[in-house]
Amino acid sequence: MDQLSSTETLSLAAITLASGTVLWNAVREGEPLISSIAMSGLAFTSAFCLIRWLGSVFMRAGLKGKDMSKPKKLEIPETMGAVCAVVYLITMILFVPLPFYYDIVAATSGGGNKDVVLELERIETGRLLHKFPHSKLGLYLSGILSLQSVVILGIGDDLFDIRWRHKLFIPAIAAIPILVVYSVDFGVTQVVVPRPLQQYLGQLVDLGWLYYAYMAAIAIFCPNSINILAGINGIEVSQSIVIAVLIVINDSLYLLPGSEYPHPATDSHLFSIFFLLPFIGVSLALWWHNWYPARVFVGDTYCYFAGMVFAIVGILGHFSKTLLLLFIPQIFNFLYSAPQLFHLIPCPRHRLPRYNARTNQLEPSVTLWERPPSKVIAILLKLMSRIRLVKIEYNSKGDIVETSNLTILNLWLVWFGPMKEDRLAIGILVMQVLVGVGGLFIRHRLALWIFQQDNRAYSILP
Amino acid sequence: MDQLSSTETLSLAAITLASGTVLWNAVREGEPLISSIAMSGLAFTSAFCLIRWLGSVFMRAGLKGKDMSKPKKLEIPETMGAVCAVVYLITMILFVPLPFYYDIVAATSGGGNKDVVLELERIETGRLLHKFPHSKLGLYLSGILSLQSVVILGIGDDLFDIRWRHKLFIPAIAAIPILVVYSVDFGVTQVVVPRPLQQYLGQLVDLGWLYYAYMAAIAIFCPNSINILAGINGIEVSQSIVIAVLIVINDSLYLLPGSEYPHPATDSHLFSIFFLLPFIGVSLALWWHNWYPARVFVGDTYCYFAGMVFAIVGILGHFSKTLLLLFIPQIFNFLYSAPQLFHLIPCPRHRLPRYNARTNQLEPSVTLWERPPSKVIAILLKLMSRIRLVKIEYNSKGDIVETSNLTILNLWLVWFGPMKEDRLAIGILVMQVLVGVGGLFIRHRLALWIFQQDNRAYSILP
Repeated sequence: MDQLSSTETLSLAAITLASGTVLWNAVREGEPLISSIAMSGLAFTSAFCLIRWLGSVFMRAGLKGKDMSKPKKLEIPETMGAVCAVVYLITMILFVPLPFYYDIVAATSGGGNKDVVLELERIETGRLLHKFPHSKLGLYLSGILSLQSVVILGIGDDLFDIRWRHKLFIPAIAAIPILVVYSVDFGVTQVVVPRPLQQYLGQLVDLGWLYYAYMAAIAIFCPNSINILAGINGIEVSQSIVIAVLIVINDSLYLLPGSEYPHPATDSHLFSIFFLLPFIGVSLALWWHNWYPARVFVGDTYCYFAGMVFAIVGILGHFSKTLLLLFIPQIFNFLYSAPQLFHLIPCPRHRLPRYNARTNQLEPSVTLWERPPSKVIAILLKLMSRIRLVKIEYNSKGDIVETSNLTILNLWLVWFGPMKEDRLAIGILVMQVLVGVGGLFIRHRLALWIFQQDNRAYSILP
Repeated sequence: MDQLSSTETLSLAAITLASGTVLWNAVREGEPLISSIAMSGLAFTSAFCLIRWLGSVFMRAGLKGKDMSKPKKLEIPETMGAVCAVVYLITMILFVPLPFYYDIVAATSGGGNKDVVLELERIETGRLLHKFPHSKLGLYLSGILSLQSVVILGIGDDLFDIRWRHKLFIPAIAAIPILVVYSVDFGVTQVVVPRPLQQYLGQLVDLGWLYYAYMAAIAIFCPNSINILAGINGIEVSQSIVIAVLIVINDSLYLLPGSEYPHPATDSHLFSIFFLLPFIGVSLALWWHNWYPARVFVGDTYCYFAGMVFAIVGILGHFSKTLLLLFIPQIFNFLYSAPQLFHLIPCPRHRLPRYNARTNQLEPSVTLWERPPSKVIAILLKLMSRIRLVKIEYNSKGDIVETSNLTILNLWLVWFGPMKEDRLAIGILVMQVLVGVGGLFIRHRLALWIFQQDNRAYSILP
């Protein structure tokens, strides 16, 4: 079980060799974007092998769980997302020398002081030779720091099984490095006001500490929202890969030959791509093992880690509003779950769909009402049932005795009937892709109306 | 057991209140050094409470161990160093805004670009208002990154019980961030040549990649050397506190009113102090619980973490040679242990001193020779025995059947006879203090002879 098959060995060796060769050339020619692609290939193969090899080690250390939605409830390794995260972090750290200009120190008085630093001439000639000025290093490192923090806290969560209401704040603590370094390094808290409001507020408004609260909210929301859209094989990794790919497509709009250059947002989107490509690499390796039927579980660590990657690129890349457009299914799932999460209506320990061993299909899981709901809640539930947002069972007296659990996975099963685990995952993912692509389309069209310009076309306008 | 006594609660509340007040004022007045002292006070109280409160949580998660050198072999929590490390890391991250100048962004084209940055006038007037230029932020963050890495790997070690020969390289991986950022950020690999060699090599010699190998070696040595001078209550934390305090004393020599200002090494030593003060804070909290009779164990995590703090300040502060002077007992212990570590002579699983329950004292633990050693080794052992570096037992035929294990702790017991666990720890620590103070004294005297100047007096000479 822990061994690679010979096909796998050959394929992985081929990818490693190809990535290695490309990397070698890209580093010599100073092409950080191509280097990043090659390093993501290496991150994929490393993560793939480590996930396979470390399975039994994790099981022995007690990091294992039972897959409840299978005929045979086998134990498989848990928390494998931690392996991905560690491979990712090492990749990101080794990548540091590639995208930054070197400061050439012309004079030093010793002890690490750079008394005279020569500014490099802008040596870029081709479009692909994108490099950051050195002053971005702090932000880049703060992103890695936040990710490391969330991994440490995520492992703590997987080990100690922290209470739900404490979990919520793990990403908030992990976001401290980016917020702190943002304040030291850039500190701009002004935002552009949408056109309809400009006559009242002016063109820019300084949000001050509210802007930090907003960034913290993004950092809390992204990881937790992935963590609650979970529970069937492959869903956590797949949705993360979909979001990552969509962000990369959006980033590419600013970097492709057709776009303006140098564009003020180029650096931000390059920054985002550099963070996302290796993430996609390690996630694909995990996906291979976690897709139905799963051979490993990802653990909370992966959900926090993935959500934090998105929060970081959104915050430091200054496109958090676009980011939220790609989280529409997660936002819906969160709002839809809220009545149960905040215990307005009963919430069982687990809300994942119920496995029917006879049909080998998943059915909506339900909450049993030991006593009937209060009048207000009963009316609301019936209203939701009218628009098919919940399935209700009544007893002979007409009281509510059973309602389907409020998660998007159960809702999907309410709408389309029982189905196999992988078909449910595919359905949700197709929906996520469609909503995401639609969101991006609207964003670049509507932006021209709400703001004065789409920032893609920034330098064309006066 | 997990509760604070009322005396403790009162004392901790007083320290928290005092530190909080000092911090409030120091932040407002822009005094990073005083802020650092105050934050170290808060780190101490936070770590103290968390170590106490989390004991039973760690025990339940299986992180526990038996204390073998006590009449009753009670189980107590293990890996408590991880708690210290997390408190330390949060402290260091929250500290970031205090010691750096703000860049004042005068113009931006959006998207996080700082197109025009105004250089701040040097606003310092008093001697204590030490701040770093913004370009040091990368190095500072890389230090935190390395520490986070070593904590993640250390927790992995405590969880999975990694093999000894793999453990050795945990600090090497964790050192990657500082080495990578050093190469991007500063990249100077030239060292000053000692005077007697200058006629052959010139005043400076460029070590190139050898310099990185040297830095990596420091990073591997410091954590591992603390990890092998271990095994009795309190010894890991105490030796770390002694080293940290001695480095702070050395740093202060460059910052006290009597010294030249601005001195080229001021920033490096300030950097070192900022890393060490909170370390001393969390270590004292751990020390309180780990000193004889121990109520918690520190775990490998703490040893790696502590050693890495020292390696980072030594490397990034450019005083790695001075650092090694403070590690003389650890260097001796490592060299003395080497024959057993590298299996030139047999090495039992544990080499900690043997507990004699009858006398409640520790005695030197021994290696049994099932067959007599080879002639060469026998001669070497007898030579060592002549200068009292090992205790040998012979059988009636004159063959070696038993030798004391080669650790400094056993050697101390060979020299001074069996003693109680805390007396052994105190003895080693007093020795460490004396050797360290002597080392610092010699360093500042001898430097004038070996190099052209002691760098404390740099700017006096032409």
